[in-house]
Amino acid sequence: MGNALYNALVSDRKQHPERINATVGRVREALGIVCPAKADVICDKHLKNAVKGRNGISVLTDKLAFKLARALAKELSGSEAKRFAALINDSEISTQEAIDLHEKYKIPVSHLEKDLVFCRAQGAWLYDTLGNKYLDMDSNYSATNLGNENGEIAIGLMNQARQLIATKEDRVHIPRARFLQVIQPMFPKELTQFYWQNSGGEAVDKSLKMAKAYTKQKGVIALKNGFHGRTHGAVAVTYNIKYRAPFFLDQQDWVYFVEPNDDEAIAKLMKQGRAKIVIMEPVQSEEAGVRPLKPGFVKKVRALCDKYNGALICDEVQTGFGRCAARPGQWWASQAYGVVPDIMAIGKSFGGGYPVTAVVTNSKVSAAMKPGYDGSTFGGNPMAMVAAYIATRQMVEKDITSNVVARSKQFRSGLEKLKKQFPGLIGDIRGIGLMIGFDLPSKEAVAELQSHLKDNGVHSSLSTGNAVRLLPPLIISTKEAAFTLKAIANGLGRIG
Amino acid sequence: MGNALYNALVSDRKQHPERINATVGRVREALGIVCPAKADVICDKHLKNAVKGRNGISVLTDKLAFKLARALAKELSGSEAKRFAALINDSEISTQEAIDLHEKYKIPVSHLEKDLVFCRAQGAWLYDTLGNKYLDMDSNYSATNLGNENGEIAIGLMNQARQLIATKEDRVHIPRARFLQVIQPMFPKELTQFYWQNSGGEAVDKSLKMAKAYTKQKGVIALKNGFHGRTHGAVAVTYNIKYRAPFFLDQQDWVYFVEPNDDEAIAKLMKQGRAKIVIMEPVQSEEAGVRPLKPGFVKKVRALCDKYNGALICDEVQTGFGRCAARPGQWWASQAYGVVPDIMAIGKSFGGGYPVTAVVTNSKVSAAMKPGYDGSTFGGNPMAMVAAYIATRQMVEKDITSNVVARSKQFRSGLEKLKKQFPGLIGDIRGIGLMIGFDLPSKEAVAELQSHLKDNGVHSSLSTGNAVRLLPPLIISTKEAAFTLKAIANGLGRIG
Repeated sequence: MGNALYNALVSDRKQHPERINATVGRVREALGIVCPAKADVICDKHLKNAVKGRNGISVLTDKLAFKLARALAKELSGSEAKRFAALINDSEISTQEAIDLHEKYKIPVSHLEKDLVFCRAQGAWLYDTLGNKYLDMDSNYSATNLGNENGEIAIGLMNQARQLIATKEDRVHIPRARFLQVIQPMFPKELTQFYWQNSGGEAVDKSLKMAKAYTKQKGVIALKNGFHGRTHGAVAVTYNIKYRAPFFLDQQDWVYFVEPNDDEAIAKLMKQGRAKIVIMEPVQSEEAGVRPLKPGFVKKVRALCDKYNGALICDEVQTGFGRCAARPGQWWASQAYGVVPDIMAIGKSFGGGYPVTAVVTNSKVSAAMKPGYDGSTFGGNPMAMVAAYIATRQMVEKDITSNVVARSKQFRSGLEKLKKQFPGLIGDIRGIGLMIGFDLPSKEAVAELQSHLKDNGVHSSLSTGNAVRLLPPLIISTKEAAFTLKAIANGLGRIG
Repeated sequence: MGNALYNALVSDRKQHPERINATVGRVREALGIVCPAKADVICDKHLKNAVKGRNGISVLTDKLAFKLARALAKELSGSEAKRFAALINDSEISTQEAIDLHEKYKIPVSHLEKDLVFCRAQGAWLYDTLGNKYLDMDSNYSATNLGNENGEIAIGLMNQARQLIATKEDRVHIPRARFLQVIQPMFPKELTQFYWQNSGGEAVDKSLKMAKAYTKQKGVIALKNGFHGRTHGAVAVTYNIKYRAPFFLDQQDWVYFVEPNDDEAIAKLMKQGRAKIVIMEPVQSEEAGVRPLKPGFVKKVRALCDKYNGALICDEVQTGFGRCAARPGQWWASQAYGVVPDIMAIGKSFGGGYPVTAVVTNSKVSAAMKPGYDGSTFGGNPMAMVAAYIATRQMVEKDITSNVVARSKQFRSGLEKLKKQFPGLIGDIRGIGLMIGFDLPSKEAVAELQSHLKDNGVHSSLSTGNAVRLLPPLIISTKEAAFTLKAIANGLGRIG
């Protein structure tokens, strides 16, 4: 056992070039979990020679780790030692140290999420640094639809990094050719042209650029309560003024916000010649608490764009890759609405968790772009294309969209039942596929439910106002969906 | 040998989940390289049953591959078979097929580079699909400073993808904590705060947002001939009007362009209260053909930003991580100029080729950002932090900046010699570290030299007008630098 303990405590650079030696803080934390009664005594006895280094953190020297491993082999039982080694293998840094480092160095552009520190995943489950497991209802805003670990992508990326790690967007390379050769039949047949990017915001930003080049006009109509990203372009068409005002992007002469489902307002703007471009998320998620647009509206906007030679941009970054399948085989929310956009921004789970996004468009819009109009160092790089190739193949092979349809029904009917069971608690239930939202009486009730869910092993997505959002990995099983519904029932029972 | 041939022709999904079976086109191409005399006969005999599939490309079935492997084992000599298998392992798709696929599906935002299709790297060398090797003078715009393959990053990414592939920017995770714990002492001590992004353009876009939030003013002064990226924000401060006009980003009321080195123009704009933010690349590369700013100018701009409570943004995306070291230990071009910017955008080689970039700033600017101001799904994700941790450690361990200083001297003195040797050919020689540019009499002369360089095994960087740019990987050896200079001498001899 001494060996296994030593191997956990010391980073073997050949096997784990990404790790450091365990910290004293983590040893203390892991012992506290494994054997709380003797943890302090062991630490006081064996770790007194540890020296504080950068950031006030003591990292074990190889020598100290060797001594400690020998001592622990004696002091811990076999099962304790095994559990201790597993915890250190999960993370060699303590939870508090990890939080402190983030707080020290983070530019506070967002609220730091530190309630749980995840360090490992299996299927739809996340494991935290304390050894607890949680069913994921967030999927990193839909970026880990296939779960948060991926053995095939792991091997594919290793092979590629050993062979050729980077090639700029404008140069031909083999992994991209490979992806294009097999290109999964998941894209609408009109949308054949690709431009590769690295983040969703970037894909939206470039979608806007293409639409402007195509329509030869700068006006863009966006929907209130939409969310499209954070670059200058993407945030300018995002409604929440808090995201725009600090950067003087609140008074853009090219952006017109209209109410969702108000096609008359769009028709008017187009008729006046003020804008030919419309951008929308078919299901407004982030800011609106999961609100699907009305089918009639989306179709009317499609017709208006046709009438005025405009461009319909569907921001499918979060809704795409099966998230909003209403029927098997529907990879895009726009398909569920029966429309084909002129431009689609896609991302999130495209690379199974690897940052790869794209603008996909038809040949007409594509032809409006000329060499020099854009460029990208990392867009569609060999690693990204390996990840995208493997992830999309898995989506097709696992028949993800059929699972989405089945689990969606299960969640919807389960929630409807709970709505009856707890009168006055659950209000509106919304969504398509596995993008589901439901209202509770108040923001506080949402926080309370989420706290109960956490106690019951369910990791919540961020909420929006008084709406709870459910965005599980699309591989979630019948049993796991039932587990979630049961946890929600328990939580509601405690609120009510 | 039959086995090795079969293994090359057929993708073993466990070992190579990223590969497909070899195409008939590639078999034909590889045989043409290995044994041109008998290639056609072999193909006609053994590949007549291949069926064309998607995109008109014939991919071998397992069965056909098995038959072919057996046949080739008989028809090829041992060394021919070995070379054939190596070529297929490098790429299972033919060069022309790869090019055709790119041409079919690419949105033509940039000119497709298809003169060489690289498929493998070793150190500073790139290998193409035809089995030729080239010394890299481009480094993917400086994104592969450590060379274009990386064994440690390969293993680190594999481990991480198996454990936890993604976590959004706002949530604490272990690989980021690990990076922060050891954070290489390569950042100026004032610049302690990080916000993680995925592309250089994104990092610049967010740098501008932060500077605006900090100065509470939107005005930005940018330099003529600068290049900062392609998002709405980044391209708005990029001088070349061709990059802005098609998207109506040429008349921004918040951008002021001034001549490089004209600090009086900047002083005037600041005094008038029109702008408090200045963005610059310390060495203008992309658009200007490698032109270092004057030291006095950069220092004066620093003083002006101090005087007016402004913000100096250094776009070190291409110049950073040792590229422009004038002395050992200088990781940033701004250090070579003796200034510390308020905000630094960094990227390119940060992750050794993996897409990871960041905004780095001081505590004052950081404090101007509030939760909700920004957010990122992939920024600083676990894979990115593994890559950044390993890559920055390698940069420090390999003492990259010392090599840059030594090789820079070698290149500069070599070019000065050539300037004397070929009077009237080489004009101005510019640059810092291993960002070197020199002028030839014309654009045509540059194209001619680049063609000769290619014939002599040197892969050129994109040129700018009549300027040749040299951006070799920073690990380039004395011998390899000498090889390049010799190739340049040969090329100039043929022009002259």
